Amino acid sequence: MSSVAPQPLLLDAARLAGLLDRIAARIGAAHVVTDAGDLAPRLVEGRGLFHGAAPAMLEPSSTEEVAFILAQCFEAGVPVVPQGGNTGLVGGQVPFGALLLSLRRMSCIRDLDPVDLTVVAEAGCTLHQVQQAAAEAGCLFPLSIASEGTCQIGGNLSTNAGGTAVLRYGNMRELTFGLEVVLPDGSVWNGLSRLRKDNTGYDLKDLFIGAEGTLGIITAAVLRLYPAPRARATALTGLPDPEAALALFRRLRDVAGDALTGFEILPRFGMETVLKHIPGTPRALSGDHAWYVLAELTSTRRDDDLSALALDVFGAAFEAGEIEDAVIAASEAQADALWKLREALSDAQKFEGGSIKHDVSVPVSRVPQFIAEASRRCAQHLPGLRVCAFGHMGDGNIHFNLSQPVGMDKAAYLALWEDFNRIVHDLVASLGGSISAEHGIGLLKREELTLYKDPVALRLMAALKAAIDPRGIANPGKVLLGP
Amino acid sequence: MSSVAPQPLLLDAARLAGLLDRIAARIGAAHVVTDAGDLAPRLVEGRGLFHGAAPAMLEPSSTEEVAFILAQCFEAGVPVVPQGGNTGLVGGQVPFGALLLSLRRMSCIRDLDPVDLTVVAEAGCTLHQVQQAAAEAGCLFPLSIASEGTCQIGGNLSTNAGGTAVLRYGNMRELTFGLEVVLPDGSVWNGLSRLRKDNTGYDLKDLFIGAEGTLGIITAAVLRLYPAPRARATALTGLPDPEAALALFRRLRDVAGDALTGFEILPRFGMETVLKHIPGTPRALSGDHAWYVLAELTSTRRDDDLSALALDVFGAAFEAGEIEDAVIAASEAQADALWKLREALSDAQKFEGGSIKHDVSVPVSRVPQFIAEASRRCAQHLPGLRVCAFGHMGDGNIHFNLSQPVGMDKAAYLALWEDFNRIVHDLVASLGGSISAEHGIGLLKREELTLYKDPVALRLMAALKAAIDPRGIANPGKVLLGP
Repeated sequence: MSSVAPQPLLLDAARLAGLLDRIAARIGAAHVVTDAGDLAPRLVEGRGLFHGAAPAMLEPSSTEEVAFILAQCFEAGVPVVPQGGNTGLVGGQVPFGALLLSLRRMSCIRDLDPVDLTVVAEAGCTLHQVQQAAAEAGCLFPLSIASEGTCQIGGNLSTNAGGTAVLRYGNMRELTFGLEVVLPDGSVWNGLSRLRKDNTGYDLKDLFIGAEGTLGIITAAVLRLYPAPRARATALTGLPDPEAALALFRRLRDVAGDALTGFEILPRFGMETVLKHIPGTPRALSGDHAWYVLAELTSTRRDDDLSALALDVFGAAFEAGEIEDAVIAASEAQADALWKLREALSDAQKFEGGSIKHDVSVPVSRVPQFIAEASRRCAQHLPGLRVCAFGHMGDGNIHFNLSQPVGMDKAAYLALWEDFNRIVHDLVASLGGSISAEHGIGLLKREELTLYKDPVALRLMAALKAAIDPRGIANPGKVLLGP
Repeated sequence: MSSVAPQPLLLDAARLAGLLDRIAARIGAAHVVTDAGDLAPRLVEGRGLFHGAAPAMLEPSSTEEVAFILAQCFEAGVPVVPQGGNTGLVGGQVPFGALLLSLRRMSCIRDLDPVDLTVVAEAGCTLHQVQQAAAEAGCLFPLSIASEGTCQIGGNLSTNAGGTAVLRYGNMRELTFGLEVVLPDGSVWNGLSRLRKDNTGYDLKDLFIGAEGTLGIITAAVLRLYPAPRARATALTGLPDPEAALALFRRLRDVAGDALTGFEILPRFGMETVLKHIPGTPRALSGDHAWYVLAELTSTRRDDDLSALALDVFGAAFEAGEIEDAVIAASEAQADALWKLREALSDAQKFEGGSIKHDVSVPVSRVPQFIAEASRRCAQHLPGLRVCAFGHMGDGNIHFNLSQPVGMDKAAYLALWEDFNRIVHDLVASLGGSISAEHGIGLLKREELTLYKDPVALRLMAALKAAIDPRGIANPGKVLLGP
């Protein structure tokens, strides 16, 4: 896959040295990192798909320092790649000769208001840090993803992160009231609004959210908190197929409404992989099932008997033949153990050899059709392939991951990446779906995007990029192909 | 106020005639309306603040026809002003020599899916039509505003409409999954996505929502439905002041969580005005109170006893001295009657002479401070002024309307419009608020916007306008000052 990475930039050494000197004079020489050993871990992303290069990593400590850096780079025509926790899955954070900009020193919680239910966090805060600050104030910051201990708010915003609670609370976009952004020319847009309603001109905030750093550098955000739930019911069910899972989803939504917070699906192969490779994971259901659904209900009402509600629904679903078995967690510890079965799946898959991944979405009603047809087509292309289709079924977002046949050469398997992309993404497109539901485009899916995105949309995107970043210094070559 | 309207455009008569002939050949001569009598009602907005002019009104029946019109106008450099139900409150829909584009013939519900909870509606559908289609399918389209029988989806989208259920369901923006837009050059962006998650490039949808037709013409949208509520509790309470209302809001939110769907405040003057002028409105509380709150709880759970929940909260609030009296509707008819007290307020105010209106928002926690201080400053500026501060307190959105002193000359009063704008908007800005919470900018607030909006944001907006509408033909002179 590294073949899709761009050629590293060649910068004029003398001009670069002058630029770095000016930046060092402003932010401190210790925060212009050029040591190869220090840089190395920041130049590769987690899956090793892209190996980048950067002459230096800059570590500003304030919005003003970021603005200074951007103004200098704009003047010099030197590109900048922002990087948060380096947990992105599509290579958006990898520099190819550009200066690397780390926001890690900007990690202040500037404000938290439990009446307005807002928190103002700097881009370098980890997601976990924001979750903790909210919890300490008796509130909930609902974004929850596997990398939450490492990933940073700036990255969450730039990739419009999703996760396991989108069904109820939305993506990062829906959890953001306002932004502070340093534009490519170094000017600072102060959009740190805490307002629920503000119709004063174009919606700038949502342009930067999900732009993967290609339109500017997000330095801080006003994020939306929720009252902390006081009741919770977590259940694991065994089912015959995704059609049955869709029927269960409709039953739960119909009865529980907003209380339905999570609805995750995983196949037998996924469950067995977790139980085999991840220590301390319990076999929660005694029988063997083709599919599993992990469902969670939450409520802010303390005396809400969500377990009774879930039991009623499961009883009806059992009678209708939609589920084969179910268990409801009797304690917080049991609930956490059930979640571990789901959350450990990405890690567990690594033990099963090469994995070709797709992060796709389709309308919720078409998930069963997508899983069945995509599985059939892929297995036909490579007998012995092990399909692991799992994820956020309630949002129509399936991680359609393909583990290599047992015993096959890993490199030979990974060479089929584009074959499988074509099979899966063609189907997704025909079902009105998206080839990137929550991970973004980065480097990995730039070419794919040109195949499936509406051409007028691509043209609009290029026009917006040119208007906001006329010198092309903000994370160049990411999302969009071309200059 | 009509002094802020731009000079009408002067178009070359021969070129204009040729353009209209080509358009008539495509969409039918009957749909190129030039009769002055037919045009007249479309050239004035509801409050009579702006009197426009247009050589013709075009009534296309399809996206392709809209695209043809835009391509022709782009070529000829002739501007176009889209108009929905002509219920906008800031003059955005009024043409000044431009061609008027009515979407009323595009009023199809293209699709409704109760599993995916989506409806695909054309721009000319009335809001009521979409609400009805949803209800017939057992679903809810939650946007609710006073003009819902007349206003159209295209206008709701272009102004990011709000209303009385934003607290629970969000503005029009949060209720939209996808758009179809004809760009100023006549190309069509097909963004009719039904996906809950789609991270494939810049968020284009939200750029057009709230842009008031200045970036292109929205022709259709995928809107978000919700399961229809099955339980409802509507209550009216009497309170001493907005501080008490904020305390009640926190109590209700704490106990009811998401079930709290609406939280509206109105002052004694507003309540008395409604009771005096609107036939059939009942005095729901026997006593006399300085302030009133209309609160609504809803739930999709059929057996949810929301009245009991509300009673518990009101009991505690009464003991704490936060409320003086409360009544909970015992029937749907009673609930509707309580809502009428709130919804009739804008109409009722017309009987009290000149009204200078402000549609502002501040963080929810600052609403009491805003109301107290703004009322004090305005009354100081004009003794006898009657302040009517009412609206969506749960969103921080207050309609701060000022009725003229009894007996004052109306024109002399309205001449003070800018004085009061300055007083109110200066305070709003100092509290981190917005000078247009839900009505938009249009013509009415263009100059105000330049005073209060972040200059970098204004510059970004101008750059986006130039990038998407390089010839400046899409609703020119609205939102932004200048070419």
